[in-house]
Amino acid sequence: MQNPLTPEVLADPVALTRALVDIESVSLNEKAIADCVEEVLRAVPHLTTHRYANTVMARTDLGRAQRVVLAGHLDTVPHNDNWPSTMRGDLMYGCGTSDMKSGVAFALHLAVTLPDPRYDVTYLFYEAEEIESRYNGLTLLADAHPDWLTADFAVLLEPTYGIVEAGCQGVLRATVTTTGARAHAARSWHGVNAVHAAGEVLRRLTAYEARRVTIDGCEYREGLNAVGIHGGVAGNVIPDRCDVEVNFRYAPDRDPAAAEAHVREVFAGFDLVVTDSAPGAAPGLDAPPAREFLAAVGAAPIGKLGWTDVARFAAMGVPALNFGPGDPNLAHHRDEHVELTKIRDGAATLHRWLAPA
Amino acid sequence: MQNPLTPEVLADPVALTRALVDIESVSLNEKAIADCVEEVLRAVPHLTTHRYANTVMARTDLGRAQRVVLAGHLDTVPHNDNWPSTMRGDLMYGCGTSDMKSGVAFALHLAVTLPDPRYDVTYLFYEAEEIESRYNGLTLLADAHPDWLTADFAVLLEPTYGIVEAGCQGVLRATVTTTGARAHAARSWHGVNAVHAAGEVLRRLTAYEARRVTIDGCEYREGLNAVGIHGGVAGNVIPDRCDVEVNFRYAPDRDPAAAEAHVREVFAGFDLVVTDSAPGAAPGLDAPPAREFLAAVGAAPIGKLGWTDVARFAAMGVPALNFGPGDPNLAHHRDEHVELTKIRDGAATLHRWLAPA
Repeated sequence: MQNPLTPEVLADPVALTRALVDIESVSLNEKAIADCVEEVLRAVPHLTTHRYANTVMARTDLGRAQRVVLAGHLDTVPHNDNWPSTMRGDLMYGCGTSDMKSGVAFALHLAVTLPDPRYDVTYLFYEAEEIESRYNGLTLLADAHPDWLTADFAVLLEPTYGIVEAGCQGVLRATVTTTGARAHAARSWHGVNAVHAAGEVLRRLTAYEARRVTIDGCEYREGLNAVGIHGGVAGNVIPDRCDVEVNFRYAPDRDPAAAEAHVREVFAGFDLVVTDSAPGAAPGLDAPPAREFLAAVGAAPIGKLGWTDVARFAAMGVPALNFGPGDPNLAHHRDEHVELTKIRDGAATLHRWLAPA
Repeated sequence: MQNPLTPEVLADPVALTRALVDIESVSLNEKAIADCVEEVLRAVPHLTTHRYANTVMARTDLGRAQRVVLAGHLDTVPHNDNWPSTMRGDLMYGCGTSDMKSGVAFALHLAVTLPDPRYDVTYLFYEAEEIESRYNGLTLLADAHPDWLTADFAVLLEPTYGIVEAGCQGVLRATVTTTGARAHAARSWHGVNAVHAAGEVLRRLTAYEARRVTIDGCEYREGLNAVGIHGGVAGNVIPDRCDVEVNFRYAPDRDPAAAEAHVREVFAGFDLVVTDSAPGAAPGLDAPPAREFLAAVGAAPIGKLGWTDVARFAAMGVPALNFGPGDPNLAHHRDEHVELTKIRDGAATLHRWLAPA
């Protein structure tokens, strides 16, 4: 394949976004796009470039006092009759336009065009963010090359519609189970109906008042929800078990242990098994590069409600935030698109932040 | 196959039960047993015998003022490592011993040994009671030969442990559905949680006070239960639909329309679809043969809580009740068995009832 990432394309974040979108890279199929990105970066004299599997890392080594990371994942969710890209006026449509080839374009454009950033910069183009965590390029790097992730601050170029979304909420998933005793439905009083018993679980969920917490000026809005319920043996049988799957999104002032204790308190008296847990991340806006980044953006940050790889950096002690041109509400949707204006404005913001003083 | 239903076997309800059990007849495989039964009946001079598919009917035509039906189904549920029969003291074990070859043995024994019953008797040995209604021998006869079912009273030889279970309760199945709006679990307030909304459905079920109704001295105990609940799209998504399957067992003073109206009232405000409905049957103990049957049994009747083919006879205007030697709680269980004493006592009761005055 002729590398579509030509110098002319690399010079224009909009053209670069489109070229990246049109290299198919559904999760686990990132080799072609990683090859193109690696080839481009290896040709840049002010960068040192390494590759691990389908993750490409390039960095400056200018001896600056601070190092920042710009990171974007190369993969997309599966196409949904929305590939390759199409243009409609000021909008670029297609799988990956918002999540997150436009963010990847920011990093690649700056890597190639900015030889003397005011901080040392590590550019990370990683694989498999949209699927199970064990495939995630950052997970793999944290094991194989943790030094590639060393920094004072990180920007994840996830879609935020051009504002700063700081930190991220934690996630806890659990199954609350009620049990009973089977009986024939014609003689139901011989049994104990576990589905009826789940009514109290749902009552507590309905009555639950979720907190809103402000940290570093960012509001985090928690939520505790049933995302599934399953019970029943057969049409004639009083059910002896009902499982309610609950999903707790919690502000980063709770750690996973505190989140679990809270959920156990809400469902006191019921069997509860935690099935998944991922810590949140505090906004981390105190680091000097973070303060300067906020000044360059010029708008107040908000709390990130979804879970993102920001939390992986936070777990390694690197404050991180999300900033990208795409609309997060369009991610994974068939009509995913990005506004060209948001690409141009965001690229200018990053340039303003990183350009030498 | 040599017919195992020899004159010696036919003369003894216990031996006859065992011989019938040991002719395999899982639903839709009743040909062999129907062949044996038909051959025996055609040899009896005081009976007129007909066959339709694997259902065999034999009747006396003595010009009596009243006609009664003795009916038993020839099929069994699938074996469960419990076939052929085995004996342990006074107990006969095996698939079909209770449900209902012991009842079939009553009818076949009387058909062969009682040439001059005090009522005209129609003996019905029918197929496919344990599976979908459309295969049921009574369903087929009601279409093809409704005259074979004409009678003033019917006894279904279903397991009742030697007492009279009169009438039967009706059954209504319905799905109560709550709807909402999907949203990402991280921004749950953008959605409406349909599983949480199902909490009110479960609350009404838990608060429901079921009636106990006495008709003709028989108590019927109603029940309204969730037998299943299902909701959920994915672990990250606020669910937009939840289905609660409810099962209403109702006393025979309600007809299906009244039962449906009642269930709709209980779940007022919710979408409800009736998925199945089968009317009950009043005890029907006023018919003279019924009163005389109760006198022969000598114990008070109770209401039948499960649904049985009694309701099919009731729908055709024939009062019917259940009477058999098996324990209804053992039906369809691996350790299904019948007490030999109950077989001998029940056969004697029926003989007392039908023998000439």
